[in-house]
Amino acid sequence: MQRADKDLAFMLRYENIAWYDNGEVRILDRRVYPARTEFVVCRSHKEVAQAIRDMVTQSAGPFTAAPMGMALAARECRELSEKAQREYLADAADTIANARPTTARRMRALCDECLVAADEALSSGKDVPQAIVDKTIALNNERYGLIDRIAQHLVKKIPQGGTVMTFCFAETIVGMMLRECRRAGKEIRIFCPETRPYFQGARLTATVCRDMGFDVTVISDNMPAFVMQREGVDVFTTAADAICLDGHVVNKIGTFQTAIVAKHFGVPYYVTGAPDLAHPTIDTVNIEFRDPEFTLQAMGVRTAAEGVKGYYPSFDITPPELVTGVATPEGIFSPYELDRYVKATDGKYRVVV
Amino acid sequence: MQRADKDLAFMLRYENIAWYDNGEVRILDRRVYPARTEFVVCRSHKEVAQAIRDMVTQSAGPFTAAPMGMALAARECRELSEKAQREYLADAADTIANARPTTARRMRALCDECLVAADEALSSGKDVPQAIVDKTIALNNERYGLIDRIAQHLVKKIPQGGTVMTFCFAETIVGMMLRECRRAGKEIRIFCPETRPYFQGARLTATVCRDMGFDVTVISDNMPAFVMQREGVDVFTTAADAICLDGHVVNKIGTFQTAIVAKHFGVPYYVTGAPDLAHPTIDTVNIEFRDPEFTLQAMGVRTAAEGVKGYYPSFDITPPELVTGVATPEGIFSPYELDRYVKATDGKYRVVV
Repeated sequence: MQRADKDLAFMLRYENIAWYDNGEVRILDRRVYPARTEFVVCRSHKEVAQAIRDMVTQSAGPFTAAPMGMALAARECRELSEKAQREYLADAADTIANARPTTARRMRALCDECLVAADEALSSGKDVPQAIVDKTIALNNERYGLIDRIAQHLVKKIPQGGTVMTFCFAETIVGMMLRECRRAGKEIRIFCPETRPYFQGARLTATVCRDMGFDVTVISDNMPAFVMQREGVDVFTTAADAICLDGHVVNKIGTFQTAIVAKHFGVPYYVTGAPDLAHPTIDTVNIEFRDPEFTLQAMGVRTAAEGVKGYYPSFDITPPELVTGVATPEGIFSPYELDRYVKATDGKYRVVV
Repeated sequence: MQRADKDLAFMLRYENIAWYDNGEVRILDRRVYPARTEFVVCRSHKEVAQAIRDMVTQSAGPFTAAPMGMALAARECRELSEKAQREYLADAADTIANARPTTARRMRALCDECLVAADEALSSGKDVPQAIVDKTIALNNERYGLIDRIAQHLVKKIPQGGTVMTFCFAETIVGMMLRECRRAGKEIRIFCPETRPYFQGARLTATVCRDMGFDVTVISDNMPAFVMQREGVDVFTTAADAICLDGHVVNKIGTFQTAIVAKHFGVPYYVTGAPDLAHPTIDTVNIEFRDPEFTLQAMGVRTAAEGVKGYYPSFDITPPELVTGVATPEGIFSPYELDRYVKATDGKYRVVV
């Protein structure tokens, strides 16, 4: 119990994800972790946007890195007039929010919160970068509190001694899920598909599970069906880059396929998070395609011959008929009844989880 | 047309897979191809068995490497008495046939053919290694002739301008399929899932398609559902390590999952080959588990942290309800009617395709 809480606290410290300090933002380079623990140091908000674009940080990492980039922008323009500072910060918010198309709306919302904090600080003569850092801490803590409640609902669906399959990374909810399992006295084992082409499952999710002291097995992305058939999986669960109000789930490429396989075996699929008001339907989601060459290598080593094409959609869309339930801070909802969640929480939370 | 035939001839020359020559068997190292073209040189039949076990050659490669190992064994024992030579060769056949459990029965049948050739050569005073090499050439040519007929049946199911998805490697049938497409004037494009953890799809299948002059795209193993949904796939096709008479298909891990996904999208799945009389039902198949550590790396670079487990079933089993048809030399059969194929071909072919 003690160990789990300690590990979780360590794992979740946003200082370890991205942190602004005196003109620099240090971002943990998730591209090389856990083989190496290195930080990319950004000295301008444009470098932060580039780091986010370059996938230095992943999963919920950009939701800390982006406001830290805004703090840096506030420092960059501090010698300008108040009006010019507001303009500079508005431009910086555009640059950072648009670093990655698929999560642009959530990034936009966070940057807008930073603009509000900056506005208040400017009006009252306070230190603007510090005001943005303080706002980020407050928003993160609020988000962690909500995710803890999501974990409590999710873990009720996992039997004692059960087997859970994840897909891709989701440090906070995976860590909170495991802490809640421990609280509830549930020993579980976890299978993590490796999540090509970036190996977030193998590198990051599995490391969180190990750090939390649980039995964790990495499989390649072609093995979920075999594992569900032979080993038995009780729950398939993922986070989401977006949960649309119409029940469509946008998450890392491979989630859709694994949900099809789960349905085939009657394994329930619970997605964690909250419906995103910015996406009333799936039509507002723009699936991000990345450099196709990236699928022709693995861990930096070329696999395919010259003259072979690559293809790299970074996300896919799981339709509501493949989603058993959406685990939210308010309980588990059918993907067809997300309007109930929206009504129940109208104006209740500032952050999107 | 000319180019395709030339490429195919080049690709299929068994000399490029494994070849016995004067006390050495040179095996193309498929583990590093196409990045490097290197040969593992074996100087005893035990080294050949070890090379097969170590995955130096894959797909149908072992079906040439194994008899070449028998030729080497014949050379090793040529100074012994005729009786001792027969015993030595019988032992060598056991060693080679058992190098890989899942394909042990087909390897056994090939080694038994070599024992027959050796027996005839010994009885008539001919050169035993040469007799085994001659038998291998004859069996390979017979096999290629049958695969060419399979390709002709398969290509009738592919529309003009169609899209084909493969899984894992299968140099001969893929090459023959593309040659037949060209003969029939069908321009098609191919999507090859990379086939973790060995990347046979990315490294080998895609290279064959490129060499044949076709449009080929490598995707990671978590992308087939996305590609079927967005790009449209007309036919999903694979070879098989074993097609059981009850319609179960044993093939590289990931085939089963992709067949589930194909069924979800209504994409037909055609498996190529012939029912294996050695496997009346799936119960006679032994699924080979390999070193679990291998799934914790990619192209030799470690992905997961220490303390995380691996898991590596090398094959999976696709049940007949997910198989649209079995493309055989005699036409396409329902997986539920493979007894019809067996009756139609009773004693007709010496080789298994």
